[in-house]
Amino acid sequence: MHIRVFATPALLCQQALEDAAAVVIDALRMTSVAAIAIANGCCGLMTAASVEEARALAKEHSALLGGERNAEHIPGFDLSNSPLDYTRDRVEGRKLVMTTTNGTQAIAACSGARRLLLGGFVNASAVAAALAGEETVALVCAGTYGAFTLEDALAAGAIVQRLKDMGAEPECNDMGIAADLLHRVAKADLHATLAQTRHYRRLRKLGMEQDLQTCLTEDSVKAVPQKQANGWIA
Amino acid sequence: MHIRVFATPALLCQQALEDAAAVVIDALRMTSVAAIAIANGCCGLMTAASVEEARALAKEHSALLGGERNAEHIPGFDLSNSPLDYTRDRVEGRKLVMTTTNGTQAIAACSGARRLLLGGFVNASAVAAALAGEETVALVCAGTYGAFTLEDALAAGAIVQRLKDMGAEPECNDMGIAADLLHRVAKADLHATLAQTRHYRRLRKLGMEQDLQTCLTEDSVKAVPQKQANGWIA
Repeated sequence: MHIRVFATPALLCQQALEDAAAVVIDALRMTSVAAIAIANGCCGLMTAASVEEARALAKEHSALLGGERNAEHIPGFDLSNSPLDYTRDRVEGRKLVMTTTNGTQAIAACSGARRLLLGGFVNASAVAAALAGEETVALVCAGTYGAFTLEDALAAGAIVQRLKDMGAEPECNDMGIAADLLHRVAKADLHATLAQTRHYRRLRKLGMEQDLQTCLTEDSVKAVPQKQANGWIA
Repeated sequence: MHIRVFATPALLCQQALEDAAAVVIDALRMTSVAAIAIANGCCGLMTAASVEEARALAKEHSALLGGERNAEHIPGFDLSNSPLDYTRDRVEGRKLVMTTTNGTQAIAACSGARRLLLGGFVNASAVAAALAGEETVALVCAGTYGAFTLEDALAAGAIVQRLKDMGAEPECNDMGIAADLLHRVAKADLHATLAQTRHYRRLRKLGMEQDLQTCLTEDSVKAVPQKQANGWIA
């Protein structure tokens, strides 16, 4: 198995995606939220680049609207980008349209991939299991506003380690080796390491301690959102 | 002090460079070679994007020609991209024009920086000392063919650690935090960690063991190549 980790979507080479199973990672918070939504019975989600597009899609499909701008709730949306919003009560049996600052853009950047999955700490083991047998895997870190973010690299490292544990003996690119090393060092206390970073601090300052706890808990769900033939991620 | 480490030149934001002292890092091998050349008495170097441009510049300035394409010697050039070529015998009192695959492109990408230095493991402490008192430092990893490479991130980490040791209490971006963590884990045996990477393996396969030894030895030289008002790096 070849594993290529990309520090941000800007470093993606589209060639590398064509034959790959791609996993988009926006650990804080979009792809973690998506996994939790699917685990709680959401029957499919679609992403939109803009708030306007999201509203139109949600109307067309009678879907819930979820997402954020600058980490905060969008006026008129049913759900924010907090995993706490995506309870079974709210999302079971419902379709969902999401727009976020970074995760949804990264998903769009991976539209050329043969398979497209969403991953994070919350479903790292399930993602690795879903990748069993793949020849080429691309783990695409969403980053924040185009910049590398540590939490996404650490979540990529969590997935790399599980692939290794499965005996896949992967050959990693340099960012894959780095992500693996970083996660080995940081996994005992992800919060202590991430408390140095700007994005983690911003979310904590906004009172989102519980979001951080939820999104940084490894393997809390078994769901792996995956793009289906009909375009929905389920 | 604010430290921003960029995983590749593509992730640079030019805004961040305007007020910054930028350090270009192509640890294997160009910026290490440049530091060694200056340490051995080379009186200034210029970089060129193409072989043709390099030839023209060298002719104009009666300079030595150095560099590589695909890690190998360029026909007709005086010097390859091996640090072993840049002995005092060969370079003392001479000007030098270099063109390489990655390092010289990264230097071009940083032309908007207020100060421009070249760094690597070989001069990590000297680079940190040269940065004392700066408010904003950009450590720019050259990478290889646009992709992130681990050796450059580790060298950036070596510089971050020395800045911390100087008591600068820097605030790092996420890649700076990652580079620091990676170097802490790997520094006891850089070769063991880098032996997993494609670029290290390629150089070893080409018989460049001694180049690897030289370029991965920390603090062997005190020279810090820096772009001067006249455009030469000395």
